[in-house]
Amino acid sequence: MTVAETLAAHTAEVPDFPKAGVLFKDFNPLFAAPAAFAEVLEDIAGRWRGQVDVVAGVEARGFILGAPLAQRMDIGFVPIRKVGKLPGETVSCEYDLEYGSAVVEVAADAFADAHRVLLVDDVLATGGTAAAACELIERAGGRIAGIEMLLELRFLAGRDKLDGYVVNAIQVD
Amino acid sequence: MTVAETLAAHTAEVPDFPKAGVLFKDFNPLFAAPAAFAEVLEDIAGRWRGQVDVVAGVEARGFILGAPLAQRMDIGFVPIRKVGKLPGETVSCEYDLEYGSAVVEVAADAFADAHRVLLVDDVLATGGTAAAACELIERAGGRIAGIEMLLELRFLAGRDKLDGYVVNAIQVD
Repeated sequence: MTVAETLAAHTAEVPDFPKAGVLFKDFNPLFAAPAAFAEVLEDIAGRWRGQVDVVAGVEARGFILGAPLAQRMDIGFVPIRKVGKLPGETVSCEYDLEYGSAVVEVAADAFADAHRVLLVDDVLATGGTAAAACELIERAGGRIAGIEMLLELRFLAGRDKLDGYVVNAIQVD
Repeated sequence: MTVAETLAAHTAEVPDFPKAGVLFKDFNPLFAAPAAFAEVLEDIAGRWRGQVDVVAGVEARGFILGAPLAQRMDIGFVPIRKVGKLPGETVSCEYDLEYGSAVVEVAADAFADAHRVLLVDDVLATGGTAAAACELIERAGGRIAGIEMLLELRFLAGRDKLDGYVVNAIQVD
């Protein structure tokens, strides 16, 4: 089995979530299956080991993916959080959603000693969150070495918002 | 250094966050220090290896702790989420906050093949969230083998809400 097949075998599809017409990809079966999850993490780690200083994960599913990835690579993990969750000095970036806007934040000193950043999240959809996370990381002094997603929803063209970055996805739909 | 000393050395204290009078304990320095984080994870894993089937972590900092812990123990990870975040059939539990209430949810089938649950979160404060997570896990068919926290704020007496459970905290304040 390829890693893409392992991932597909541990992805549940839930129609009409979070709203009508959306086919939600649920990775909880992957997180519940330690060997399959380890295989997916190692696939990502193998591409980046020795080339990045820190993993940044986007709240909240990016935490489930990013924290064990960072441990496996023996590097630090930095949470990219929703607004108001981080104490101390932060850097923030606002971005547009379909309706309204959202803000992501990171600790101002997160990349003081760790400049090469691997950004991880579960799904690349419209790319709005990922683009905001990249801008945020760069404002905070980090450099995006690459972006890893479990799944890219190609029909939403999120990659167009991430021009100039290395973007990998294990599963493409 | 003991594991409690390692943890203390990687905990930042931020006064008046999230509101005046609260001394917030920030574990981001721990998550950013891979060897120290591994030591803390191994301390917890060593107490439970072979005795639990799954790690359940409470959104969102419990994900940063629980996902690598589960990988280290070679068992599955189950997210306990805020309301509306989980697709498919869920079990939910409402609990009181200082002002208003909150709801935690878990996938209805999360513990179908994994009954002995280790619940993890970063801080045991009033115990409201942990007690709700325990009730939720039991309603979903799991059995709480134990609860692990990085830090217990003893003056808030959260342990009183968790009577009958094994509760460990690395750091006690």
